[in-house]
Amino acid sequence: MAEMKVTPWEVTGEVDYDKLRRDFGLDRIDQPLLDRMKKHTGELHYLLRRGIFYAHRDLGWLLDEYEKGNKFFLYTGRGPSGNTHLGHLIPWTFTKWLQDKFKTELWFQITDDEKFLFKDGMSLEDSHSYAIENALDIIALGFDPKRTKIFIDTDYSKTMYPHAVRVAKHITFSTAKAVFGFTNETNIGSIFYTSMQAVPAFLPSVLAKRNIPCLIPLAVDQDPHFRVARDVMPKLGYYKPAIMHSKFMPGLGPGGKMSASDPNSTIYTTDTPDVVKAKIQRAFTGQQPTRELQKKLGGNPDICSICQFYRFFFEQDDKKLEKIFESERDGSLLAGEHKADLTERANKFLAEHQKKREKARSQLDKFLLRD
Amino acid sequence: MAEMKVTPWEVTGEVDYDKLRRDFGLDRIDQPLLDRMKKHTGELHYLLRRGIFYAHRDLGWLLDEYEKGNKFFLYTGRGPSGNTHLGHLIPWTFTKWLQDKFKTELWFQITDDEKFLFKDGMSLEDSHSYAIENALDIIALGFDPKRTKIFIDTDYSKTMYPHAVRVAKHITFSTAKAVFGFTNETNIGSIFYTSMQAVPAFLPSVLAKRNIPCLIPLAVDQDPHFRVARDVMPKLGYYKPAIMHSKFMPGLGPGGKMSASDPNSTIYTTDTPDVVKAKIQRAFTGQQPTRELQKKLGGNPDICSICQFYRFFFEQDDKKLEKIFESERDGSLLAGEHKADLTERANKFLAEHQKKREKARSQLDKFLLRD
Repeated sequence: MAEMKVTPWEVTGEVDYDKLRRDFGLDRIDQPLLDRMKKHTGELHYLLRRGIFYAHRDLGWLLDEYEKGNKFFLYTGRGPSGNTHLGHLIPWTFTKWLQDKFKTELWFQITDDEKFLFKDGMSLEDSHSYAIENALDIIALGFDPKRTKIFIDTDYSKTMYPHAVRVAKHITFSTAKAVFGFTNETNIGSIFYTSMQAVPAFLPSVLAKRNIPCLIPLAVDQDPHFRVARDVMPKLGYYKPAIMHSKFMPGLGPGGKMSASDPNSTIYTTDTPDVVKAKIQRAFTGQQPTRELQKKLGGNPDICSICQFYRFFFEQDDKKLEKIFESERDGSLLAGEHKADLTERANKFLAEHQKKREKARSQLDKFLLRD
Repeated sequence: MAEMKVTPWEVTGEVDYDKLRRDFGLDRIDQPLLDRMKKHTGELHYLLRRGIFYAHRDLGWLLDEYEKGNKFFLYTGRGPSGNTHLGHLIPWTFTKWLQDKFKTELWFQITDDEKFLFKDGMSLEDSHSYAIENALDIIALGFDPKRTKIFIDTDYSKTMYPHAVRVAKHITFSTAKAVFGFTNETNIGSIFYTSMQAVPAFLPSVLAKRNIPCLIPLAVDQDPHFRVARDVMPKLGYYKPAIMHSKFMPGLGPGGKMSASDPNSTIYTTDTPDVVKAKIQRAFTGQQPTRELQKKLGGNPDICSICQFYRFFFEQDDKKLEKIFESERDGSLLAGEHKADLTERANKFLAEHQKKREKARSQLDKFLLRD
């Protein structure tokens, strides 16, 4: 297996989440912290129960402030490099749960500038049109329109750019190079970009003219941006944002992160039932080479992509999930049936989601901030 | 004398304009080109006759296009690091003359982001408020309101930022480092900034949806920005801008460029008559140590700051200028009288300018582009 490499733009090799947590300097979301969350939310989201949101920065501080009556806002984002896939929905559905439980504002950034700057061959028109398409998926998840602001960087740059330069003045090339691995050949837009991603962490405080705590749920690869931002924000007079980090949803292939660069192992929210069926048919289960051997020896749910799809997304009931895992382990559930079940479940979800997604077109104006 | 160093943010040492022209790879504005200009303008501006606008890029091409009916627009700018001084007015009055003669649009950029990013201790609020003050001086010069658009970067960043990232994607840190002398300690906003300065050179083409030639009159220290921009613009499908380069107006001290970092040798457009009088009183003339010696040996107009003030700004009639120079050379004009004359002339100009400047406050909305 290739050596692990995790940056906001590239994840390769097998991810050792515990090593990553230590490398990035994150704290574990441990049982006392989970218990404390539960006091406020009544129940725990399945992504917390299963350790998929597994690390944090300053979550304890955020809850201290909350308990003192100093309510936070949520900030998360999307880099619109293509269509939305199921892996993207993980931090978003978790964010929605937080919004519902804590009744908070959510600022949702869509970074068309970033994807244009970092991807060869991507035009700004393309990344902007993906941004709109991605916004439909966000809205389809049912965020509260009164509490949710979605903004595409280039449509909101009159508001954002002046604050981004305030951030940028405090970040040297040296720092950007060390944190993001930039070289002399990196373009100057990419070098600047992290300043734009920092802005939503304090923009609500600017607009409200008072300091509001911020909680950022994100996939762990995005942490480096906020490691830098957290150093800068006190210099501008704002709180450091708190962060909750999730693991990556695996794809349908063996190992790794669901990734747009391998479309066959990725399920997009816009895939048709036939396409979903075909992709799941080819999925990696790690089952034994024959039915007989599988029945005798059983499989391993930890490496079976079908099991992991249930764990990350399609089965939120822990008991039902354990039953699926058990039938994989004991060899009673063969690959064909396993895949057919997931196909049905996935297509049911997608039919519903796609309906909401189309309805969302007429709601864009209600959600999108534009200068 | 210290070694010459000329960057958009620092000019030190004695400037050898011919060496600078060769180092930057500029062409001389020679007699055939002047004759060609004259065909269109009827007369030549004193800054051209006196070789103060002395170098160019692609001016011949620009006139070719003009003669084919492909009219250009003008673009110049101001970095609002403080109040406007007389040296700033040099390229602006020349730009106004070009606008009058060629009846062209002018796009006037005021770079509050730049001055904030490059100056320690300068806040964005400060550079923005200098930007407004500087705009008053620009308007006071009498630019045609129908053909002139003035814009402050942070007020116009919804329009500019998306185009700036288009530019930025084509510039590596390596290039920025080589051209501007950046180091690992340079902040990432400063590194990005040149992209913002490139935008107005093609923005009118974007908005008109057709390619329009651009002419940029500027002080020669700004050339590096456009050396980079000229490499990028054909990659975006636009013409390379043509450029005309001026020398720096000297200050009231011996040698050098009028500079805000030496306020006593700098005359601001907002200086009161008393302040102007006091500053000119202390000016360097290079005259002989006594009246008697001056009368006998005479002085040197080339190093006399008073003579140079007439040459750059206050005496546009060549014959009258020659008379002043001659009386300096032959020792007939002593420093006291010389300074009193200039004080009178400067205060007359400033009284008039300050009146127009105050009137300009009510015209800001007519000139300023805001998103």
